[in-house]
Formats: sequence, structure tokens, C-alpha cells
Amino acid sequence: MEEDLTIERLGTCHYTSPFENMIQETGFIPDDERVVAITDKGLIEKFIQHDIPIPSFEKAGPRRKVFFEPGETVSGIVTCGGICPGLNSVIRSIVMMNYYRYNNKRIYGFRYGYAGLVKENGYDVQLLTPEIVETIHTDGGTILGTSRGNQDPVKMVDRLQELNIDILYTIGGDGTLRGAQQIAEEIARRGLKIAIVGIPKTIDNDISYIDRSFGFETAFSEACDAIYAAHTEAKAHDNGIGIVKVMGRDSGFIAAHATIATNEPNFCLIPEVDFDLDGSNGFLSHLTRRLLKRKHAVIVVAEGAGQKFFTNDKEEYDASGNKKLKDIGLYLKQKISEHLTKHHISHSIKYIDPSYTIRSRPPTPNDSIFCSQLAQAAVHAGMSGRTNVLVGYYQGNFTYIPIDIATRRRKKIDTNSSLWTSVLETTGQPVAMVNS
Amino acid sequence: MEEDLTIERLGTCHYTSPFENMIQETGFIPDDERVVAITDKGLIEKFIQHDIPIPSFEKAGPRRKVFFEPGETVSGIVTCGGICPGLNSVIRSIVMMNYYRYNNKRIYGFRYGYAGLVKENGYDVQLLTPEIVETIHTDGGTILGTSRGNQDPVKMVDRLQELNIDILYTIGGDGTLRGAQQIAEEIARRGLKIAIVGIPKTIDNDISYIDRSFGFETAFSEACDAIYAAHTEAKAHDNGIGIVKVMGRDSGFIAAHATIATNEPNFCLIPEVDFDLDGSNGFLSHLTRRLLKRKHAVIVVAEGAGQKFFTNDKEEYDASGNKKLKDIGLYLKQKISEHLTKHHISHSIKYIDPSYTIRSRPPTPNDSIFCSQLAQAAVHAGMSGRTNVLVGYYQGNFTYIPIDIATRRRKKIDTNSSLWTSVLETTGQPVAMVNS
Amino acid sequence: MEEDLTIERLGTCHYTSPFENMIQETGFIPDDERVVAITDKGLIEKFIQHDIPIPSFEKAGPRRKVFFEPGETVSGIVTCGGICPGLNSVIRSIVMMNYYRYNNKRIYGFRYGYAGLVKENGYDVQLLTPEIVETIHTDGGTILGTSRGNQDPVKMVDRLQELNIDILYTIGGDGTLRGAQQIAEEIARRGLKIAIVGIPKTIDNDISYIDRSFGFETAFSEACDAIYAAHTEAKAHDNGIGIVKVMGRDSGFIAAHATIATNEPNFCLIPEVDFDLDGSNGFLSHLTRRLLKRKHAVIVVAEGAGQKFFTNDKEEYDASGNKKLKDIGLYLKQKISEHLTKHHISHSIKYIDPSYTIRSRPPTPNDSIFCSQLAQAAVHAGMSGRTNVLVGYYQGNFTYIPIDIATRRRKKIDTNSSLWTSVLETTGQPVAMVNS
Amino acid sequence: MEEDLTIERLGTCHYTSPFENMIQETGFIPDDERVVAITDKGLIEKFIQHDIPIPSFEKAGPRRKVFFEPGETVSGIVTCGGICPGLNSVIRSIVMMNYYRYNNKRIYGFRYGYAGLVKENGYDVQLLTPEIVETIHTDGGTILGTSRGNQDPVKMVDRLQELNIDILYTIGGDGTLRGAQQIAEEIARRGLKIAIVGIPKTIDNDISYIDRSFGFETAFSEACDAIYAAHTEAKAHDNGIGIVKVMGRDSGFIAAHATIATNEPNFCLIPEVDFDLDGSNGFLSHLTRRLLKRKHAVIVVAEGAGQKFFTNDKEEYDASGNKKLKDIGLYLKQKISEHLTKHHISHSIKYIDPSYTIRSRPPTPNDSIFCSQLAQAAVHAGMSGRTNVLVGYYQGNFTYIPIDIATRRRKKIDTNSSLWTSVLETTGQPVAMVNS
Repeated sequence: MEEDLTIERLGTCHYTSPFENMIQETGFIPDDERVVAITDKGLIEKFIQHDIPIPSFEKAGPRRKVFFEPGETVSGIVTCGGICPGLNSVIRSIVMMNYYRYNNKRIYGFRYGYAGLVKENGYDVQLLTPEIVETIHTDGGTILGTSRGNQDPVKMVDRLQELNIDILYTIGGDGTLRGAQQIAEEIARRGLKIAIVGIPKTIDNDISYIDRSFGFETAFSEACDAIYAAHTEAKAHDNGIGIVKVMGRDSGFIAAHATIATNEPNFCLIPEVDFDLDGSNGFLSHLTRRLLKRKHAVIVVAEGAGQKFFTNDKEEYDASGNKKLKDIGLYLKQKISEHLTKHHISHSIKYIDPSYTIRSRPPTPNDSIFCSQLAQAAVHAGMSGRTNVLVGYYQGNFTYIPIDIATRRRKKIDTNSSLWTSVLETTGQPVAMVNS
Repeated sequence: MEEDLTIERLGTCHYTSPFENMIQETGFIPDDERVVAITDKGLIEKFIQHDIPIPSFEKAGPRRKVFFEPGETVSGIVTCGGICPGLNSVIRSIVMMNYYRYNNKRIYGFRYGYAGLVKENGYDVQLLTPEIVETIHTDGGTILGTSRGNQDPVKMVDRLQELNIDILYTIGGDGTLRGAQQIAEEIARRGLKIAIVGIPKTIDNDISYIDRSFGFETAFSEACDAIYAAHTEAKAHDNGIGIVKVMGRDSGFIAAHATIATNEPNFCLIPEVDFDLDGSNGFLSHLTRRLLKRKHAVIVVAEGAGQKFFTNDKEEYDASGNKKLKDIGLYLKQKISEHLTKHHISHSIKYIDPSYTIRSRPPTPNDSIFCSQLAQAAVHAGMSGRTNVLVGYYQGNFTYIPIDIATRRRKKIDTNSSLWTSVLETTGQPVAMVNS
Repeated sequence: MEEDLTIERLGTCHYTSPFENMIQETGFIPDDERVVAITDKGLIEKFIQHDIPIPSFEKAGPRRKVFFEPGETVSGIVTCGGICPGLNSVIRSIVMMNYYRYNNKRIYGFRYGYAGLVKENGYDVQLLTPEIVETIHTDGGTILGTSRGNQDPVKMVDRLQELNIDILYTIGGDGTLRGAQQIAEEIARRGLKIAIVGIPKTIDNDISYIDRSFGFETAFSEACDAIYAAHTEAKAHDNGIGIVKVMGRDSGFIAAHATIATNEPNFCLIPEVDFDLDGSNGFLSHLTRRLLKRKHAVIVVAEGAGQKFFTNDKEEYDASGNKKLKDIGLYLKQKISEHLTKHHISHSIKYIDPSYTIRSRPPTPNDSIFCSQLAQAAVHAGMSGRTNVLVGYYQGNFTYIPIDIATRRRKKIDTNSSLWTSVLETTGQPVAMVNS
Repeated sequence: MEEDLTIERLGTCHYTSPFENMIQETGFIPDDERVVAITDKGLIEKFIQHDIPIPSFEKAGPRRKVFFEPGETVSGIVTCGGICPGLNSVIRSIVMMNYYRYNNKRIYGFRYGYAGLVKENGYDVQLLTPEIVETIHTDGGTILGTSRGNQDPVKMVDRLQELNIDILYTIGGDGTLRGAQQIAEEIARRGLKIAIVGIPKTIDNDISYIDRSFGFETAFSEACDAIYAAHTEAKAHDNGIGIVKVMGRDSGFIAAHATIATNEPNFCLIPEVDFDLDGSNGFLSHLTRRLLKRKHAVIVVAEGAGQKFFTNDKEEYDASGNKKLKDIGLYLKQKISEHLTKHHISHSIKYIDPSYTIRSRPPTPNDSIFCSQLAQAAVHAGMSGRTNVLVGYYQGNFTYIPIDIATRRRKKIDTNSSLWTSVLETTGQPVAMVNS
């Protein structure tokens, strides 16, 4: 980690934060407090010994002095990309923090993602009040609506200016955050004092420097139900096989966590770990052995796993436009069936894809708290004039991270970590299922 | 209803039921008590006036005199077809009733459906005890395992004889029950005194003369979660559309009940009600109007609805063996997308098929009770020497029905019933979506 | 049942019901259709033979001709007594039926029970619209608020007149329904044409001639969770005892159903079945035997059970006003502890009273449907000019019952029924725990 | 934190850990790796500048060399104190780790807490196998049973010797851990090589140096249901008040988390924050103001809050032995009722104590994972010969802590933390409710 973790600021903070009656002296975070990004004591000592700066993050939280004037600051909120448990909790807390902590009464909600930030699309903005958001944290989805894709930053900044917005909170994933950067750049180009604060949304939990993203716990918790269902189906049949495909385009965090939490899967297939289907050390051989021994099997597969099986066929499928053939779950189902049929093993395969059911759930209580805290940290970031910034969570601390750094590459499962060894231990699957 | 509703009996009951300490005089059902199959007072009076016999069912329940000797009767249990919430509750109660009410200690569980009744398939039978079944009612699936398809009745009766089984409890749907009839016929051919008692399993709730089948309540209750998810997804997008496909090959009971229970769907499509896609009164026009007005829509479709769209293409698809093309949910998704794209309406469609998750659930408490009661009625039927019989539930009474009668045709939704008018009212969909 | 089951009507129906496009010929219920109250075929035949009228109920449902003018009828809704799962579903459906089926746009909600019907209490009435009630069926409680106790019928009828109300829907239990009768009497005294339609609310399921009351299924389903908790606590301790007190002042329906649904309790104590504590056949002896054999025990007790233990002490407690001493759950806990301590049996007792958690739940999907159907039947009753009437459910049919008849005595568990024998069988408890 | 955080070890590790095929080089934790206990970068730099040692914990995890011989090590497990979600998950993972990672097949479960470690109590030990523990993680409670109170360490060590136990895993709270220390001391006295490894169990989450204890998330998540119930009850009545008492003898973590997660409570009372009832700034005044403004209120109170109200009355109550009067929930209910009655404010108070229902739940999926990880860390600690040690979790790292240190004082809510300010913000309650 040699990245520059300094956060951009719009200017000097000179307004006093209106918390005196609530937070005592120590409740405020000193403006330049940083938390170390490594906790290994020996390593820290080595860094210091060799005079290498210890990598660290700016610590999130309320500042005694803020940049924008409490009571006068105008904010906007936009939610982008697929829905994720907790979106409404985040929206709610941004509104509540503005109202009751900073006395800001003008918070606009943009409809349907960045599309709602472009005037000519004709979507009205919604003035958000405590009454409107009071109970939304118990509902899944997003009251603002969402959409995929970016929009012209010029048009979006026009809209921000027109509405006199001081701070824009963008809640979304990689693409959204890159869009937020473009907005920040356009703002800088125009020399405006508008802060762009990102709240990272990734149900896959795959953003760098962020230990945990909101909605992730809810997602893998819900995935557990699908795994239990698959297990029940599998056990009810002679050579019953249950396949559950879970979210995880580039990282297998949901698959891994749901596997450990349920203790049921016999195979957990993720994008980070290559596997072959055929051959004596391939997945199909191992699966067959498991079936012969125990008469049923449960497989959890992250949607991004095994994509290599589709690369050769790409052109062919492009022509027909059939995206379903890239579905690793259905592909496995077909290949397993062919393999077992060839070996005269009668079987019953049930395939479950619970993705939409998972995404639309309200957050678990623990996620709900996490959403509130992220949103609060975001509002503190915005009010203190930080911009082009993301709210993160690392080793137990809420942090501020430059958007640029966090979106540079995806977080992936370290196959030497205790997380992955727990998966191997739970499933009993081989460390490697590739033929040398 | 002109069918003969008389139940076959193996012979005269002369053993005394060992319930004296538990049930007082009035707790036993007189052996020939019947309940009327119609409750309309005027109609009953008309029947009597014209000397037409009032159709009626034999009432289920414990008899003072039984055919098989308590303490000595040997039973077998087999579960067939797809899994259904409550199977384990039924198994549990059959075992418990035999043990604690009739003092019968030998109850065999056959593995994997009728396949387990054919010796050469090599499956062991399992002696079921209270210890084994004590807590299984809280688990989904079936501890016995299941399979589809019938087996040679000759071989199955061989097995029953070999194990000295007096009563066979078969839990399954239409096909299973027809298989049970064949077994009963083979038994009759051999002049054996073995009773065949069926417990109807149809998650679709589509067996004639049976108001409610076990697992059905659990099924539509679980389907509600998928509908709420679809609604959340739909509302989160501009012209968001959520499609939920639920079980129901010939009857739309799950679709209808889940629609009324959630109040969310705008369209409920079932096998009993024809609909067109195109044309000014077709489904796509009505859907488009709904979207223009409200910006989102939820559609619940029973898997057996709209099968007419596949009939023309049948040969074509038969050749390729591609069953997926008959998936009405995916078909609707594609047709809706084409239609809206053609009319330049941007949209987002999410398709949810929760079937396997629904099937594998443990029963709701209410279903759990119902399972116990069905199983108890089944054991009373068997012990009193009734055979070729099914346990039913009609107008608040548990009944005995000849298997033959119940499997003759499927129960369907009466589109003049309050059930269907409730659906129309909840959805606001037109009574008919066909072009004249 | 020799009661007069004829329903009062306000006058001749001459308006046409506006359902033509929705319900076809057979969808309407003939105005005098009745359903028999007994289903025993032999009994029916005997009645007819001896020329005794078969007891029967008026069948609920939409009528072709109605008394009040569709589009012009003004309604009021009031919820009284303790909260119960499904209240909001009932309110919602009354509003929706009026709006979309009868085109009536003025439906007033009275706040906080009958108190809201007395002008001088100063509560505003709330105009209820589809927007307000759209999603309330997923929330527990009642959006109208509730209170206990009756009010002066004169003042309440004044208020109804002032608001030009044609139909008042009262949702409540025994006391509420008797209050409704008083209102109906006052209306009759003034010669007004205002219909009073009751929807019986009894979480205990103890109203006569009504097989099932709304919220009851949700209540016993929720009670199951408490029983599982008690069982877990009990099993975790040497001679662990879990006591769960459930609702049921005069009837043990919740206790019985939750017992059968969970299969966990070893004792189910209800108001209908007397029991002694001491003596060789008393409860404490049986409990001790159970503990010696199995090391743990679970007891479900209805709140109305064992009240005889408090009668002697009544004056004493009345003086101190201490109602807690009548808590049979706490009383059992104390007595069990004393008994076991006396016999030197170390033990651990956990007492759970889940009542408020149960009452406040939203309805299960099955209850949700039931609430809608009850409400629909209620609106049909009101629009057709029926008054002083209750909506019931009997042997699978929705019915209309005179309020007077239904509130005369409470429904209780028949200890010869299959319900109670199922309880005995599940628990293994003795038929009688009294010393002769 | 000036405590000595060095962990005792039984001797030199010379056996090779049998993980080679599972964990690669980097998967093992170097034997003396430590993680810093502070993450404030400035503070760390200051420590180093002034040559003060940075406080740090030993990092948990698998070691390349172990003390006990894999395949030969005998273990014991004991669960003590009240039940807590996740106990079975911890037991399961200890067994699985021993079986499949260290090839140890002898793991004994002691019944009913420390009582099971004293031979003369007559409890059998249970040999735990993968078959026995396979599915227990989905059940609440503990399959071993539990009890409160310590036993004679001499007798307990006798039993350990008799069974040739090498490692004893004690799962319990403060008292249990102090008992574990006594066992460790007795072992040291005898010069035995038996390791004592503690897994801290505190549903209140109040053990020092441990950010999160297992079962805590499940506990506050379940408490949310009770709060929603209280809110529903409160809103349904004019001046409705819902009181929920949650666990938390010395610390209000459950109360605080459940408050933030639900956003419903208007008052959160915890042991760490003093409050008065009477006076213009007392709780009752603030509650009354809330009621006048909003007509309902929800109060969450930790069981240890407001104990000062009972101190004066202590003797009096001791004499009568009436423990109920120390129940702060009931006390508040009574005081609120008196206060409001005195001020002629009609009201309805509902009091919910969900403790036993909470304790007996199975763990949430996230807690389930945490339990597995704690148990794995515990087994690594034991196998590597660490003793008198506790498994902790701090700033995202699993750690080893001397039992002695962790039990010295309880962790409490820092009222300057973002946790408590979130509570203040959510409830809107005053920072202080004491009269100066």
C-alpha cells in the first residue's frame, strides 16, 4: 500500500459544529487523526526503524470545526446500481443527521440513480424529511429508486448548481464511484465548493481497504436459507445434488461466509480459485467420490467462478445473444448431469439462484447499525468539506479514503487467510481441483 | 358428484381399540358416521324432497373396534414425488400414533419412494422409532427420501409380504396414489389382508374433494416472501417489473392465495384463466397501461399458466428436448421486454422462481398441526381395515375417500368463487385478457 | 342450538350491486341462502324425519341487491380492546372494498376504540383512503388505536348521526360486541337506518359458532417460538423446567394448538380441565416423575387455567390490589420450586410470558387472507342492510350471526374432541390430574 | 493498559502441526506475532518516541509447531452459566477442529457446567464425535447442559487427571473464567501439563479487551423484535408506553445496539448513565413531555440500570426475600403509572421482558461464523500449549489474552463514543436526566 491516502478538502473549516450539548470534548475527532492500516506490531516497529511512514487512514467522525454552515447546507442523495440491503437505512441516517445534528433542512433525493441528476430526463427531485424517512429502514430496496450507468458529468453538475447543492452523497459501487470522481473533477474544473462523498455499496464486499460493506452481512445471511433449502432437497434424493449460485462477480466473500455459517456445502467455488471440471483431480471426479460416499452433495458457487469455461465459446454465444449460457450455475448443472449419466449414476439436481430475493431484503439489525454509522461518518465528511472521498471501515475503525484509491482494484479472498482455510475445513473439498 | 364414496374394508373389526383411558365414549367415531358433502340448506332440503341421496363422506377418526390387532400390526411408510413441507410431520405422527396409541412397535420406512419397495434396488428399510422421529417435524424434506415414478406392483407386494406388513401408508400425489391403487389391486388379486392408506400430497392443493392439502399453506406463505422481493425490486426501478413464478401445474391456488395475502401483485396469471399476450385487450397492453400509470408492476404466474403459447412450437422444442422454453416465467420476461423495447419504454425486469426454496421449508405451525391430524386419521383408517382409501379434509371435517374418486380429476379454481373475485379485486386486473 | 339465528335487516334492498363486470351470475349469494350448522348426515336425516328444522346460518357474501346506495354510503370503523394480529388487514379490506367495489369514498376511522366515538373526548376522526391503508396489512397493531371499555350509546349514536354514518364496523371482542348491541338498540330507538356490523376479535378463539377467529393462527404460531425457547432452556439444565404462559382466559385453544404444533410440551394446562397441584395424582407428582425420567420438562399454561387456586385468597389480594398473585404462571413457578426443594431435587425454572410480543405481530399470510375475507363479508353485510350482525366462519363457510347469540356464552375446548386427545397424546400427560 | 499481556505456556512446541496440505507457508502465524492494541497513528508514534512499549496482544491462529501431539491429544469441553446463542457452534467447531485438523479423536463433553467435572456428582462424560455435533450449530442452548457456580478445583483436577485430559476448554463468563484460573493454579501446583483455554461467553458483551463476544449480535438482534412489539403496542393506545427490559447487568451494550438498530426507542436507560426519576430534569418529566407531544413512547432499559433506586430499600426487601422489586422494568412501570395517574394522564403501559427467548435462540449466520473462528483459535491455543488463556477479538484480529487480565474489570459503554452519541441522537433523549 503505497497509495496516497490523503483526503481532498474544499477549504478551511471555520464554522463551529453544533454538538456542544451532545458530545463532550473527547467526542470530537481531532481533524488530522489517523489510524494505522497495519496492526502487526513487529511490522510497525520495522517501519519505524527504517523510517518508512506507516500507512494510515484518516479517521472518520465529527469535527469540532466544519466547512459548511450548519443550518444552511443543502444536500443531495443519489442511489445507483443494483439494490442492496440497507440502502434505505443509509438514506434515513443522512437525512436524520442533517436535520437533528446539523440543523440542515434541505436534503434532496434524486430519483433512479444518476439518471435523476440529469434535468432533461424529467425526474423530479424529492425533498426528504424526517417524516418521510422515519420508518424506511425496515424496508428493502431504495425509496429513491436506482438505475445503472453513468451520465454526463457536465449535465449533472449543472443540476447540482441549479439546486444550490453543497454536498452530494452518492451511494453505489465501483462504476458509481468512478462517476462520482468525474463529477468531482467537473466541480473542480468550475472552481465550485461542492463536496462529493461516496458511500461504497457492494453486496459482494469487494472494495479495497474496506473490511465490510453494508448489506453484505444481510446478503450472506439470506444466502444461508438457500443453502439449507438445497441441502434439504439434496438429502431427500438418492444422489441428490443441490447447487446454489450466489452473488460475487470477482470475489467469493458471500459464498465463503455462507458456507462457513451453514456448515452444509461440500464444495465452495469462487472466482479466486481456479478449478477444472474433468480429469482425475477435477471437480466432477471429486463430486462423484463424495456422492458414492454420502449419497448427496451441496455446491455453492459464486456467479463469477469458472468463467474460463465460457471464454472459448464466446463468439458463438455472442451471436445468439444468449447470456444464460454464461450462468455458471446452469452450466455446472448440465455438466454434472452429463457426467453422472455417462457413469450410469442416477441422480437429482436442484439449482437455486436466490439473488433477487437476497438483494431486496431489509438489513439485519447489525447491518442496520452499520448503515447508520456509515451515513453519519459520511455527513461528518461532507460537512467538514472533505470531497472525492469514500467512507470506509478498517480494523474496527470508520475511515475516510480517496475514491480514486478504493476503486483502483477489487478486494479478493486471500486463499491463505483463515477465512479460506475455514471454508476448506468446512467443506472438506481439496485445496486444488486442477489437473497439473 | 355422483361418484360412489363407499370405502373398501378388509373385513370385520373385532379387536378393541386401546384408547379407553384416553377417549371417553363420545371420542370414538361411530363406524358408519358420514358427513354431508354439501352444506347449502336449501339444496339439502331439495335432495330429501326428491328422495335423492345426499352425497356424503365417511368421517375420519378413531373407531371403537379395529381390524388389525393393536400391538401386533406392522406398518410401512413411503414418501413419493417432489418434497413438500410437512412430510416429516406426517411420518412422525404415523410413528407416534402406532407406538403410543396402538402399541405397534414395528413401523418400517421405505427409502426413496416406490423404488425403495422393490427389493432388487437394494435399499434397506429403516425401522422407525420415537427416538428417530422425535424432532424431525421441524425439518423440511423427508427423512425417508423420495423419488418420482411408479414401480412394478408385483414386486412391491412381494416386498410387503416378505416384511409381513399389514398397512402401507403412501404419501404422494396423483401418480403415487394411482400407484397405490395398483398395489391395492395386486393385494386383492392375491387375497391378502394388507391395507393401503393414502395421504394426499399436493403442494398445488389440486386434489378433488380435499379442501386443503398439507404443505399448501406453507407453500403460499413462503411464496409471499418472493412476491415482496419482486415488489421491492420493481419499485426500485423506473418501469420496474417483478415476475414471480410459483408452483401450480393445473391449478392456480398458490398464485391466488399468495396474491391475496400480500396485496402486492397487479397481475395473477393461472392455468384456469386463458389470456392473450397481444391485442388491445391482451396482457401486454394492460401491463403497459399499468406501467404508464404507476411506473412499476408485479406479476405472479403459476407455472401451468399460458401453456398454449408453447403448443404450436411443441415439435420444434421436443426435438431439441429443451424444457426451459416452456417456462412461462422466462417466456413472459422475454415477451414483455420485446414489447416494451418496441414501444421505447425503458424498463427493468426481475424474474424470481422460488420453487425449491418453498418446497424444502418445514411446515408452518398450522400446517404442522394439520399434518399430525391427517396422519392420525390415516392410522385410524388403516387400523380399522379400510383400504384403497385416502384421508381427506372437507368443510372442516377429516374424511375418508376412495383413492379412485379423488384422483379422477384435478381440483381447480372456480372463477366465480370469492377466492378469484378477491384476486381480481386485489390486483385490479381485468376479468378477461383475451381478444374476442 | 335452539337460538334464533335470523339476522335483522334495516329494510328492503333495491339498489343494484355494482359488481356486474366482476362477478357473474353465480358469484352473488341468493339473499336467503343458508348453510347447515351440522354436517352429520345421520343427524340431518333424523331432524328431517322428525320435522325439526335443521339449524343453519345465513351465508355471507355479495348480494345482487343492496340496501345502501353504492357510491353514497358513509362508513365508520372502530377497533376496540387489546390489539390482535390482523386488525390492520381488516381495516384495509373494509376501506378497499368500499372504494373499489361499492365506490364509497367516505370511510371514517375512529381513534382509540369507543372512546373515539364520543365527541367530548376530543379525538379527531380520520378519513381513510386507499393511499393511507395500502401497506398497513404488513404491520401489527391498529392504525386507529384502541382502548378498553364501553361508552354511553347515546353519545356514540349522536356522533354517528352528526357524521351521517350509514354503517359502523366494530372490531372487538365480547365486551365490544355487547357495546355494539347497545348502539344498535339506541339506533332502533331513534328509528335510524344505521347498520351495525361486528367483526369478532378474539385472539383466544373463544366466540361461539365461530370456528376460527382472525389473529388466532398468528397467535399460536408465535407462541410456538416461546415454547421452543422454553424447551431449549429446560434441556440445558439438570432438571430444567420451562413454563410458558399463553393467552386464553376461558379457553385453552392457543395452548392446545401450540402444544400440538411444537410437540414439545409435557404438560398443557387449560381452563377447561381442572387439576390439583398436590396429592399422588396431582400435577406436582406427575411433573416430578417426568423429571426423574427425562431430566427436563416443558409446561404450557393458559392464563385462565388453575384460577381455583386463587379463590380462597381472593379477599386478601383484593385488599392489596395485587393482580400479579393471580398469575398462574408465576404461581406454578413458585409451587414447583417449593415442591422440588422440599424433595431435594435441584432444578432450574425459566418462566416465559410472550403475550405482548404475540399480540403485536402482523398476521401470517393465511391469517391475512382470512382477515380480508372477513372484512369483505362484513361490507357485504352492511351494504345489504343487515345490522346487529356478526361475521362468522363455520365449517368452511363465512356466515352471518346475530351478535346477541354469539356473545351469549364462550366457546371452549371439548375434551372429547380430537384436538384435546391430540394434546394428551403429544404431551403424554394423564387424562386427569385430580385426586378423587 | 499497563497489564502484562504475556501468555503462559506449558513448554516448548516440538510437534509439527498437521496442516501442510491445507495451509501454505503464510497461513501459519509466527509464534510470537503480536497485534497492537491501539490504532491511533499519532499515539503509536508518541509511544515510540518516548520509548514506551506499544501495548499489544498475541495474535491467535495456527502455529507451525505445537506442544501436544496431534492425533493423541485428549480434550474436554465444559459450558457454564446461562445459555447464550452460539454455544453449540463453539462446541461443534472444537470437535471438528480436533477431528479433522489435529486428528484428535478423544474429546469429552462434561455435563451441566463445572458440576460435571466433579466425579461424585455422578454425571457421565460424553464422547463427542462429528456425527453427534454435525447439525447442532442450528440449535440454541448447549447439548452439554450448563449450570451456575464453581466447584472445588482439587476435585475438578482429579477428574481431568483421571480422564487423561490434556486440554480443557471452558466456555463461560466472568465467574467461570475465574474458576478456570483456579483450575489452572491447581494444575500448576501439581506440576501437570494440562492447558486451560477459556472462550469468553458474555451475552452482555462486557469483557475487557474483547470487542465482541459470541451471541451478542444474536441477542441484540432478537431484542429488536421485542422493541418493535413494544412500539406497536405503544402506538395502538392513547399515551401508550412500551417498556422493554433487556440483558445487561453492568453494561448497556444490548440496549444501545437494539436502540440504534430499530430507531424506535425514545429512552434508552443503561447502567453506565445515572438518571433520576423525579424532578424537572428527571426521567418522568421527560417521558411526560414526550407523551404530550407524540402520544406514545418506547423505553428500553438494561436490567442493571437504575439499581440505585433499590439500595435504600435493600434490607427491607432482603427480609421478605422478594427479588421482584429489584426488577427495574417493573419498577419503572409502577413509577410511571403512579406519576401519570397523579397528573391525570390516562395511559396504557406494556412491559416486555424477552430475556429467555433471546438467550435460547440459535446464532445468526454472522455469529455462527464468529463462534467457529473463536473455537478454532481456542484449539490452536490449546494445541500450542498456551494455558490460562482466553481467546479474544480486538480491532478485527483474534487474539490471546491472559484470563487474569480480562476478568479484572468489566467493559462498559464509553459515553463519549460514537455508539452512545448514536443512541442519544436516535432517541432524542437528554444527555443527562439528573437534577443537579
